[in-house]
Amino acid sequence: MTITVYGSKISTYTLRVLVTLSELDVRDYKWAPVNMAAPVKEHHSHEFKSNLQPFGQVPVMHDDDCDLTLFESRAIARYLAEKFHSQGTPLLGTTPREKALVNQWIEVESQNFNKPVGQILLHTVFSKNYGITGSPEVVEENLEKLEKVLDVYEAHLARSKYLAGDFFSLADLHHLPATNLLIDVAKKGHVFESRPHVSSWWKSISSRPAFRDCLAFQKSPGP
Amino acid sequence: MTITVYGSKISTYTLRVLVTLSELDVRDYKWAPVNMAAPVKEHHSHEFKSNLQPFGQVPVMHDDDCDLTLFESRAIARYLAEKFHSQGTPLLGTTPREKALVNQWIEVESQNFNKPVGQILLHTVFSKNYGITGSPEVVEENLEKLEKVLDVYEAHLARSKYLAGDFFSLADLHHLPATNLLIDVAKKGHVFESRPHVSSWWKSISSRPAFRDCLAFQKSPGP
Repeated sequence: MTITVYGSKISTYTLRVLVTLSELDVRDYKWAPVNMAAPVKEHHSHEFKSNLQPFGQVPVMHDDDCDLTLFESRAIARYLAEKFHSQGTPLLGTTPREKALVNQWIEVESQNFNKPVGQILLHTVFSKNYGITGSPEVVEENLEKLEKVLDVYEAHLARSKYLAGDFFSLADLHHLPATNLLIDVAKKGHVFESRPHVSSWWKSISSRPAFRDCLAFQKSPGP
Repeated sequence: MTITVYGSKISTYTLRVLVTLSELDVRDYKWAPVNMAAPVKEHHSHEFKSNLQPFGQVPVMHDDDCDLTLFESRAIARYLAEKFHSQGTPLLGTTPREKALVNQWIEVESQNFNKPVGQILLHTVFSKNYGITGSPEVVEENLEKLEKVLDVYEAHLARSKYLAGDFFSLADLHHLPATNLLIDVAKKGHVFESRPHVSSWWKSISSRPAFRDCLAFQKSPGP
């Protein structure tokens, strides 16, 4: 056994790593569930912070091959996509130009898309977990921000099948877990459905077997 | 002429790209200043958004070699570090393990460090530019968050000269422009100085000739 993933099924960032492994057809990894529920909050324990993730966040990956402990979901996904580049779906592009555009859209997800989405999820789906009262004003304000971002996506996806070009990549993949929650649980699907090219893109990427497998794993019994 | 950088001297994200070029010893790029001041706001113009950056942000890079227009400062820096890997300072690590740790700390800057720093700068240095009244409460709240992040940096930098190991990398570089503003203009240097290893790290990375050159360029006449 080489790869261990420490994480939680309720963490969209953990799911991002699991979808990456699934796209790369890596099946023999070890799943190490972290109990994030109060009062346990294993991720906030001294042991977890000392040995795995100093900021007390999930996911964390360990690779026995080079005794590497790595955190931050986008960094883990990139590491896995490079390590297993010869199997499954190529996720980082092939030419320098393709790679650059994958990196650009990975950053757009991180800087433009994820910020409003994170706030909406915090004030709807995750408010209980964080012990806050969800604010409808914060949700509205961030939905407006998200819609402006999606207007740019709509114009771009009218000319490009996927974000970085005519190939599925990590840039698309990174959107999957949080967007799924935004649509299925927070019930904000209308901002995607009302934009035809965004809607087609979402249908295409969310129906990929790798992602469906991960959602099935998420719903399976056990932590 | 191959590389053109569209940006503004007042943009920390633009500076990030210029420091990268300087570390890579790329001197023959073309500087294309974007007038971000009201009422011009060139970056919000239809032309800028259509041709260069659909979200209306700087910087943008164009590479004639492969007719590539690229935005998002961290994606541009990565592209340049890969393109010019055989000259200047190696910025991405050499082994898969080093590369993974560079990517991890690039993400830490992006997700943990830059969020509170961005809020502090918005409510101090940049409040006028964005037409808001700076809130001392927001500044205080984000200074507290930043101090928690810097506590992790302090423990880490006690064991490691730079963030990703014993070599300077993009992970360190990405901190330079915003931290410099935080210390020099927002006068929040005490949160760095009070942590001895963070302080040494800051002195080491901020005194690099590539960064001093960029600060001299920033202060030079002209846009």
